[in-house]
Amino acid sequence: MSNIEQGHDVAKAPGDSGAIVISIDAMGGDRGPEAIVDGLALAAKESPSLRFILHGPEGILAPLLAARGLTERCDIHHAEGVVTMHDKPSAVMRNGKGTSMWSAIESVRAKEAEVAVSCGNTGALMAVSMIRLRKLPGVNRPAIASFWPSRNPTGWNVMLDMGADVKAEAADLLTYGLMGTSYARNALGLTRPRVGLLNVGTEEHKGHAELKAAYDMMTKAQDAGQFEFIGFVEGNDLPSNRVDVIVTDGFTGNIALKTGEGTAKLVSELLREALTASPLAKLGALLAMGPLKRMKARVDPRRANGGVFLGLNGTVVKSHGSADATGVAAAIELAARLARSGFSAKLAARVASASVSGQDAPQGEETSEKVS
Amino acid sequence: MSNIEQGHDVAKAPGDSGAIVISIDAMGGDRGPEAIVDGLALAAKESPSLRFILHGPEGILAPLLAARGLTERCDIHHAEGVVTMHDKPSAVMRNGKGTSMWSAIESVRAKEAEVAVSCGNTGALMAVSMIRLRKLPGVNRPAIASFWPSRNPTGWNVMLDMGADVKAEAADLLTYGLMGTSYARNALGLTRPRVGLLNVGTEEHKGHAELKAAYDMMTKAQDAGQFEFIGFVEGNDLPSNRVDVIVTDGFTGNIALKTGEGTAKLVSELLREALTASPLAKLGALLAMGPLKRMKARVDPRRANGGVFLGLNGTVVKSHGSADATGVAAAIELAARLARSGFSAKLAARVASASVSGQDAPQGEETSEKVS
Repeated sequence: MSNIEQGHDVAKAPGDSGAIVISIDAMGGDRGPEAIVDGLALAAKESPSLRFILHGPEGILAPLLAARGLTERCDIHHAEGVVTMHDKPSAVMRNGKGTSMWSAIESVRAKEAEVAVSCGNTGALMAVSMIRLRKLPGVNRPAIASFWPSRNPTGWNVMLDMGADVKAEAADLLTYGLMGTSYARNALGLTRPRVGLLNVGTEEHKGHAELKAAYDMMTKAQDAGQFEFIGFVEGNDLPSNRVDVIVTDGFTGNIALKTGEGTAKLVSELLREALTASPLAKLGALLAMGPLKRMKARVDPRRANGGVFLGLNGTVVKSHGSADATGVAAAIELAARLARSGFSAKLAARVASASVSGQDAPQGEETSEKVS
Repeated sequence: MSNIEQGHDVAKAPGDSGAIVISIDAMGGDRGPEAIVDGLALAAKESPSLRFILHGPEGILAPLLAARGLTERCDIHHAEGVVTMHDKPSAVMRNGKGTSMWSAIESVRAKEAEVAVSCGNTGALMAVSMIRLRKLPGVNRPAIASFWPSRNPTGWNVMLDMGADVKAEAADLLTYGLMGTSYARNALGLTRPRVGLLNVGTEEHKGHAELKAAYDMMTKAQDAGQFEFIGFVEGNDLPSNRVDVIVTDGFTGNIALKTGEGTAKLVSELLREALTASPLAKLGALLAMGPLKRMKARVDPRRANGGVFLGLNGTVVKSHGSADATGVAAAIELAARLARSGFSAKLAARVASASVSGQDAPQGEETSEKVS
């Protein structure tokens, strides 16, 4: 890694002067660094107090920043290497040191930035985050949390794990519930989120043994953990107003996420075909365009862009690999929101308090003032 | 069970005179026996050669049939008891003998009917089917197969297991592949279906150990089994034209199914809201109504109604509990299609030939003439 950290002192550490610094991996997205710098420009315009550290080849990034008038608000950490979508996580762990992804995580580890954002290879990003940031005390398996469009007042549910680990024991599921609670409080502003365990039925006797054990643990932990445990939920509850945080293992979560995406894509493709099927239908689509556009925006996956890695010493936002400028900006804005709320520290305190106090400790009410 | 089997001799066993007999549980659906008899009437009109055995309280069913002019084409097997959606499968196994569900399965066991159809409690229906029909030789875990709307030429994929068992070993997944192949051949008319294993990535190294073992078994079995193994598929491939038969365990399958249903429901609700949001939008919807209706019909879950229990000595079609007449008719027509093709015998032969010949037996080509 040959970081030429020019202008590095310009970027303030969080809390240093109140300026929030976001670390951004400029490479590894499907659309190249232009889309990422365009997204950065959108987010920078939206939030004038944000500062950025951009990681990647300086010769490429400096002109892109200059052209958008962003030179003053961004540091560049030079990194030649790029992690591709085909690189195996294990190989990146061994040889990834000179890459923009590694460098982006390094800025969080060194506390130069509060949160890192990357559009790159999910498995590699999780692997690098794990070895550089390390797991939080009390966390056995970190998780990826995503937003899910729903009938909730905020328009979103939180679901985790979306694929950090294909397995989860009962204790991991409880930790996911606590981390999801903290995330829903800080990202969605919910005081006492409703947490549900994803299962194949809502009756207590259904599902795997780990799910039944997690059911009991969550029932006991809900008061200390400041969430409302609503029991088992099913796949069709995911977009509902019954639940705010949906807990599942990474295998099931990843398949549910992609199934939902695939279904929404099929329906929207069929809708587009229907609305261009005849001149009359085209005219109809034109007349209904306003509400149709608002509907499209409502479920636009770009608005929900950003899976968040939870359970590490530092927060990492994983943007979709194919994110365009709008998507990248949404991921950066999510990162900024989490940074402003001091999310990393709050999450750490919540997980630590649960593992210290036990899952049914009465002193839960006392800690409620401190963590979120 | 107090079957008053009046007119029982009118119904012919399959093959007896060429008439296909379908056994129908008239009770246990959310909309009561009226919806089921209405669906029966639709199917009866569509297929004049079909005959039916209807199971439930005779005092209720006889007038419903008479009012629709169906008395001559239906036998009633009287059964007082009804399995509700809240009954536990274990309780129904012990005490379900006098119920319409039990009676409906009994007609298949006694070879009075070729296929049974029920709208009742899935877990109870599977439990009763298991103890009365018994598993096919070579089948460890029976499975539920469903259609999934897709970009395929037929408009559908087949997916299994949708929730017969929350677990599946590698050998079970291979059996699901063989049973799904047979089902796709008989229900969708595909000669050499493309089979994919549902996973969290398409690379060979991803997923659980059972999935990796099943990957190897399917690679070897594909020629003898007359399917094309395309490897791992992801959630977003479910509605695609990449695959015809998607194999997964019952936990994942059930969650994917309900997630897809929930997502499609959310999108269609939002679409309805958009198209009634303003007078202009309403006019637009009116102009585009024809293509919009065709699109709605294309993904109408009622058209795909009917999960099929595979791996038993006899075929059972599980209709959605909330199915209306259109949905019930679709389930009955599916049952009739499977009965006409001699599906139960073909499936049994396919599973038996695989377990006799081994998964990579070269004589697969020879058996290809006999089984389907």
